[in-house]
Amino acid sequence: MSKAIVLLSGGLDSATTLYYARKRGFKVFCLIFDYGQRHKKEIAQAVRIAEASHSGYSVLNICLPQKGSALLEKRLVLPKGKASPLNKIPSTYVPSRNIVFLSLAASYAEVLNADTVFIGANAIDYSGYPDCRPEFMNAFQKALDAGTKAGVEGKRIKIAAPLINKTKSQIVEMASKLKVPLHLTWSCYRGGKRPCGVCDSCVLREKGFQEAGIIDPAIGK
Amino acid sequence: MSKAIVLLSGGLDSATTLYYARKRGFKVFCLIFDYGQRHKKEIAQAVRIAEASHSGYSVLNICLPQKGSALLEKRLVLPKGKASPLNKIPSTYVPSRNIVFLSLAASYAEVLNADTVFIGANAIDYSGYPDCRPEFMNAFQKALDAGTKAGVEGKRIKIAAPLINKTKSQIVEMASKLKVPLHLTWSCYRGGKRPCGVCDSCVLREKGFQEAGIIDPAIGK
Repeated sequence: MSKAIVLLSGGLDSATTLYYARKRGFKVFCLIFDYGQRHKKEIAQAVRIAEASHSGYSVLNICLPQKGSALLEKRLVLPKGKASPLNKIPSTYVPSRNIVFLSLAASYAEVLNADTVFIGANAIDYSGYPDCRPEFMNAFQKALDAGTKAGVEGKRIKIAAPLINKTKSQIVEMASKLKVPLHLTWSCYRGGKRPCGVCDSCVLREKGFQEAGIIDPAIGK
Repeated sequence: MSKAIVLLSGGLDSATTLYYARKRGFKVFCLIFDYGQRHKKEIAQAVRIAEASHSGYSVLNICLPQKGSALLEKRLVLPKGKASPLNKIPSTYVPSRNIVFLSLAASYAEVLNADTVFIGANAIDYSGYPDCRPEFMNAFQKALDAGTKAGVEGKRIKIAAPLINKTKSQIVEMASKLKVPLHLTWSCYRGGKRPCGVCDSCVLREKGFQEAGIIDPAIGK
């Protein structure tokens, strides 16, 4: 049974990626990151999702610089309304976030003898973050091949981003088929009792469910 | 005045890199990592070196997996005697260590508006770690160019590894010219009162000082 690391944020995309990896037959270990997000709700939900999927997991603290992103600094305003234009990187960009996550995942992959790192990055209905794009994934794969013992010895750690070219509605359909516990997923940039419905992430999610014709159990519409 | 991030471990190479960056006119911010090393002595020395150079610094905790490396697990035996053959990766290899360090440095570089990340990696008189080689540095540079806002917007964060092609004796000579406080540097894999003199790192360092014809103030010979 092959082993895999899954980067799990508590959102729709990473939960779908987790269930996809399990369906593909991997024994999964989830990495959940506490990097000073505006709220801890997504971390709590990620833990529930990992447990629901019967996967091992660990919550890792990371000292990212706590400045310069609306996802980290509460004094900054979260973008509202229609999702940001795709040619502009929004204020919610966290510098080098996926680069740091994937680097740590590679370290755990080597130690746990996992051959694949799954990441729920998406470059279609997405936020515009540069570290979600295939160009970055391909470049990072080459860095891993050159910089890890596994890579040098020919037992490559593969980065898998199965959602990267899917629309949000295709991801919702996939999640539904894979029986992802959608009611546990949390996409909202805020940590309220219910999703705010107006941040970029809520808007993208709602559009995805609407287009897929599926009710979002997290909000009941 | 350009800003730079310097990865500082407390050892000879990173201290020399710090003083090189200062000499080149950069305003430097040092990142020192507490990643579960066998001993904390190198962290204490790194702090002293940062202070001696009048640079800003931060000590970051990183949750690397605490298994599989003789630098992390005290039950594993540190290699002794002559430095390891260069075609074999030694037991002191920490999976993806430089990949994680450089990723975090890139994050700080973006937030602090630094255009260069300095790393004291060396691929001549070195440990054999794959993430110290030019092949890795070049590949990681491309990943940063593709995955950061700075890279996408053309304000590239440059990885600089000024020691990568130098012998240990050339590094000692450089350190001496740059007036690096060599008595503060700590290279030994153990955290005793004095360097053990027998681990790979001590052996490499002693050879470097001998070949340079310079007395090592950390051991007095």
